[in-house]
Amino acid sequence: MASSLGLGSRVNTILQTCFFALSGVMPRDKAIEAIKRATEKTYARKGKAIVQKNFAAIDSALANLHEVRIPAKAAGQRIRLTLVPNTAPDFVRNVTAPILEMRGDTLPVSAFPVDGTYPTGTTKYEKRNIADEVPVWESDLCIQCGQCAIVCPHSVIRAKYYDESRLAGSPALFKAAPINARGYPDSRFTLQVYVEDCTGCGVCVENCPAHSPADFAVKAINMKDRLEHLETGRESVRFFETLPWADRTRVNFANVRGVQFLEPLFEFSSACAGCGETPYLKLLSQLFGERLQIANATGCSSIYGASMPTTPWAANAAGRGPAWANSLFEDNAEFGLGYRLAIDSQTAQARALAQKLAPRIGEDLVTAILQAPQVTESDFRVQRQRVDALKSSLTGTTDPDVANLLALADFLMRRSVWIVGGDGWAYDIDSGGLDHVLSAGKDVNILVLDTEVYSNTGGQASKATPLGATAKFAAAGKTIPRKDLALMAIAYGSVYVAQIAMGANNEQALVAMREAEAYSGTSLILAYSQCIAHGTDLRHGMKQAARAVASGYWPLFRFDPTMRERGMNPFRLDSPRPRIPLAEYRYNEVRFKSLTQTHPDAAKRMLDQAQRGLEERYRVYEDLATRDGSRFELASQDISS
Amino acid sequence: MASSLGLGSRVNTILQTCFFALSGVMPRDKAIEAIKRATEKTYARKGKAIVQKNFAAIDSALANLHEVRIPAKAAGQRIRLTLVPNTAPDFVRNVTAPILEMRGDTLPVSAFPVDGTYPTGTTKYEKRNIADEVPVWESDLCIQCGQCAIVCPHSVIRAKYYDESRLAGSPALFKAAPINARGYPDSRFTLQVYVEDCTGCGVCVENCPAHSPADFAVKAINMKDRLEHLETGRESVRFFETLPWADRTRVNFANVRGVQFLEPLFEFSSACAGCGETPYLKLLSQLFGERLQIANATGCSSIYGASMPTTPWAANAAGRGPAWANSLFEDNAEFGLGYRLAIDSQTAQARALAQKLAPRIGEDLVTAILQAPQVTESDFRVQRQRVDALKSSLTGTTDPDVANLLALADFLMRRSVWIVGGDGWAYDIDSGGLDHVLSAGKDVNILVLDTEVYSNTGGQASKATPLGATAKFAAAGKTIPRKDLALMAIAYGSVYVAQIAMGANNEQALVAMREAEAYSGTSLILAYSQCIAHGTDLRHGMKQAARAVASGYWPLFRFDPTMRERGMNPFRLDSPRPRIPLAEYRYNEVRFKSLTQTHPDAAKRMLDQAQRGLEERYRVYEDLATRDGSRFELASQDISS
Repeated sequence: MASSLGLGSRVNTILQTCFFALSGVMPRDKAIEAIKRATEKTYARKGKAIVQKNFAAIDSALANLHEVRIPAKAAGQRIRLTLVPNTAPDFVRNVTAPILEMRGDTLPVSAFPVDGTYPTGTTKYEKRNIADEVPVWESDLCIQCGQCAIVCPHSVIRAKYYDESRLAGSPALFKAAPINARGYPDSRFTLQVYVEDCTGCGVCVENCPAHSPADFAVKAINMKDRLEHLETGRESVRFFETLPWADRTRVNFANVRGVQFLEPLFEFSSACAGCGETPYLKLLSQLFGERLQIANATGCSSIYGASMPTTPWAANAAGRGPAWANSLFEDNAEFGLGYRLAIDSQTAQARALAQKLAPRIGEDLVTAILQAPQVTESDFRVQRQRVDALKSSLTGTTDPDVANLLALADFLMRRSVWIVGGDGWAYDIDSGGLDHVLSAGKDVNILVLDTEVYSNTGGQASKATPLGATAKFAAAGKTIPRKDLALMAIAYGSVYVAQIAMGANNEQALVAMREAEAYSGTSLILAYSQCIAHGTDLRHGMKQAARAVASGYWPLFRFDPTMRERGMNPFRLDSPRPRIPLAEYRYNEVRFKSLTQTHPDAAKRMLDQAQRGLEERYRVYEDLATRDGSRFELASQDISS
Repeated sequence: MASSLGLGSRVNTILQTCFFALSGVMPRDKAIEAIKRATEKTYARKGKAIVQKNFAAIDSALANLHEVRIPAKAAGQRIRLTLVPNTAPDFVRNVTAPILEMRGDTLPVSAFPVDGTYPTGTTKYEKRNIADEVPVWESDLCIQCGQCAIVCPHSVIRAKYYDESRLAGSPALFKAAPINARGYPDSRFTLQVYVEDCTGCGVCVENCPAHSPADFAVKAINMKDRLEHLETGRESVRFFETLPWADRTRVNFANVRGVQFLEPLFEFSSACAGCGETPYLKLLSQLFGERLQIANATGCSSIYGASMPTTPWAANAAGRGPAWANSLFEDNAEFGLGYRLAIDSQTAQARALAQKLAPRIGEDLVTAILQAPQVTESDFRVQRQRVDALKSSLTGTTDPDVANLLALADFLMRRSVWIVGGDGWAYDIDSGGLDHVLSAGKDVNILVLDTEVYSNTGGQASKATPLGATAKFAAAGKTIPRKDLALMAIAYGSVYVAQIAMGANNEQALVAMREAEAYSGTSLILAYSQCIAHGTDLRHGMKQAARAVASGYWPLFRFDPTMRERGMNPFRLDSPRPRIPLAEYRYNEVRFKSLTQTHPDAAKRMLDQAQRGLEERYRVYEDLATRDGSRFELASQDISS
């Protein structure tokens, strides 16, 4: 009923009506009247249309209320499935499953890890099946661009290419297409949708650029009824999982088409359907998964990043994946800096021990390990083999140096430290710590999932909240412009800074993440993240992000200090000049639109002020971009001081 | 001896030599040899010249060592003067004086204020007489420009103008000159040096622009032996104090010449001779003294701002002056914001009560009070009279509203909140709080006394420390550029931001302080403050500040958001293009020069890196300055996202 009335999945008004109509706690007429009054009060700021829809929901609920008789004895024949398969690891069967089944209080303390660590990659056992509709791939229309996979917030769309011979024994309805690349006649491509893990957000479909020539409304991926595709989907996923992931040394990391072939090590999180944050984290896990060490600030990302009892952070077939922890809201930047200092110290110890033990290990191997570049995937593969060889050489002795080196040998592999959090963390609660890390010059990467509001705690204004947006503590519109954290970091001159927005330019986001990781100093990435708190339909969230960029509100750029070494301007503006007015972006969102209802004059004034602020700010970025890398000449005139 | 050897007042090497030569704790030869070794080690990084001077001091100390026989009985006839005059307030005589005489432990607890407040303006009773030389005014050479008074770190140079008739009964050697202004034939001008409070820094003399036509080395103010001028000076000061201060409503606040006539309410602090910070605070006290409420961060300014048992913050003849407090190092910005919120709340209460009691007070008076503009000095004077009249009208009743209004009536005068501290506070320890205050948009003014190092705790690097400077925790030169706090604040768009440097442009500093105070939002001023921690002769500190500006390292600018309302660019660059290389500024300071001795290659590399960084940063400011205030046009071409 909610869906047919245009309320989507919002059933609160309908259920409230039913409760009061049936419970008799108040006279029915009075209750309904009170509900209507409350509805008007609650939704007035969201506009008349919303109020009317809710009124219709109340009337419709009353009109359709009917009794469902419960039989005296259950008549069904279906057996409840085991929640996790018998092939799952012990921990999942013995600990995760009972908690998922709401029997966690029966577990003894001894069932839990004693050292604070927790097994990763367990969301895959929690098949939630929450979507009404799921995307279905049309292999013949697909251009294999990877755009659906990169924007999927839940890693439920995955791509593999493989030799045609692998298709032997595939399920009848398993889909495959010749790969869209020259010189690989025997390769097949499959885009697999994980139907049981999909939340049905539809972002993939909205982002698909391929249309049917016969019917423009039909794309290469389309939303269809989940139940109709459930069995086929399950079978296909099972077969798809037996196919190998692409060889990382052969994948083109430089574009969206390439990275779809990288295994995500962040999957099926409990984030909202259509979440704007999770695509960035998934991409991070694809690019640097094995080497990732993440310090996660408190906030949405710490919640969906570790929703008891499952974790979306996962390991690859070799058992390697991101290490992840969450410290406090107010110290996450420092916490991540601590990772770096610890890693550097342990790496230095490992290197010293390797040199000391070189006669036993082999001088050539030690030299190769210590001089390894560790930049490309091939570098990492070879270094991993060398480190394994080093470990193998260290057997049959009780020498404490050997024991120490064995404990530290993995630090001979370069790690990638990422400090991750939302704007509440980065702009407010830990702003002092973040600034300290920016000033320290260490090799850490900071990713701000910027929803411009405290999303997880219910939408309080942060320093990232834009002027004129409504939020808790800014009910009449925020009167202060958003803090320009990017410009503040650029002001250091030594920090790699990028502003990115998936939906507006996925390729730029990808390039920025790779440059940030490669930069040997500190990096900061501000990632535009659409959010339910914005009051916009997240199915179209990527388009809304594109509008943020098109209006000039969220220019895309990269400030790369290494460009100076080549005599070039470190600042590059990656998005074109503003081409839509700010209003065209803003008024797709309730956070802005509601002000036009509640405070129309203020809304008008603030919009104009925000538009002017945007222009002033854009000019700064444009100025930064329109320079060469040349030196400066001193004024020749003698002006006495 | 130290002075004649070019060591200034540094007597440590000489006294150490004497001690070891006389005490016999070690064989004399060995001791002297060890002292020379230690001297070389200690001063090598400051350059060979310093080492040689100290060697000379050792030799000279030994050569001049001679016995002074102490007579069996004191032969002198002089009586020790009372430390404070009998005319001093009770508290000063009963509490301050005993503490100054090192008898503080004889005071009962009951002698101290019970509520945490402490009487102000007591440094004037602590005549320290520490200078060897003091400035002496040449009334006939003086052009009355006010440049000596504005730079004086200790408020010991003051100017008054007054009617000639006032000179009746002046001491014989009291100096006066016709005032250098048309239309005031009967007015006389006196520049008074407070010889007993002077620290002898010589900054005034170096800053004096007037030279004798007969001898270029003679200025309108010159350093002379204190003892020779002590008695005359005392008498002159005593008489000068009887002369009235200029009428504030008739003083031109807009230039240096004008503000010399404003009474400083910050005087004779315990700051170092030649301190670069205190002239800014003195100016603050002159401009807004009666209305000032200062939140002072921990650091030098909190120490010399309240050195037990005296306070340099003072009151005027009416008993009004700055209110001052120091909270914690890490919360001073928030502490000052709290002042504002409290003042706003109490002002609102006072206004409401005044309205409620208008029939008793008089409708016209209340209306006048509530609508008073409170911008100019005349406004303040009239409002003060009105508030006094309001208080007078509220007698002879026990009405609690009346009692409340009497308690709150002073809040009907506009107050000026200043949050003051050093760079250690602003850039590091409370950077999160400062950022919060910048984002809150309240009417507070932040003054950062920027020495670019933790001065008070002994010279540790802060985030304000420039690249290539040595400091504690940066012994081999700081490898990260200075944090550009000004640009960060400008990035908010809503904060008034100024960068100032006395010595480079005193007028611009003055204008910035006044604009900041007048701005109804948040203001931030970064004030270049030369410091003993820089390792430069503070007598020439103002010239060194001018070099900082001339090199482009410390551009002077003002970002005034109110300019937008007039369709103008909010950013104004107040200093000319760089005209000396950075090295010419830097190598006058040990903090930079020492690196050329200890790490010559790094020094060279960092200097070049700093020069390039300066150029990049200067371009940003130049770009900001070279705009008009026009609106922005959207790109017309349709570029698909």
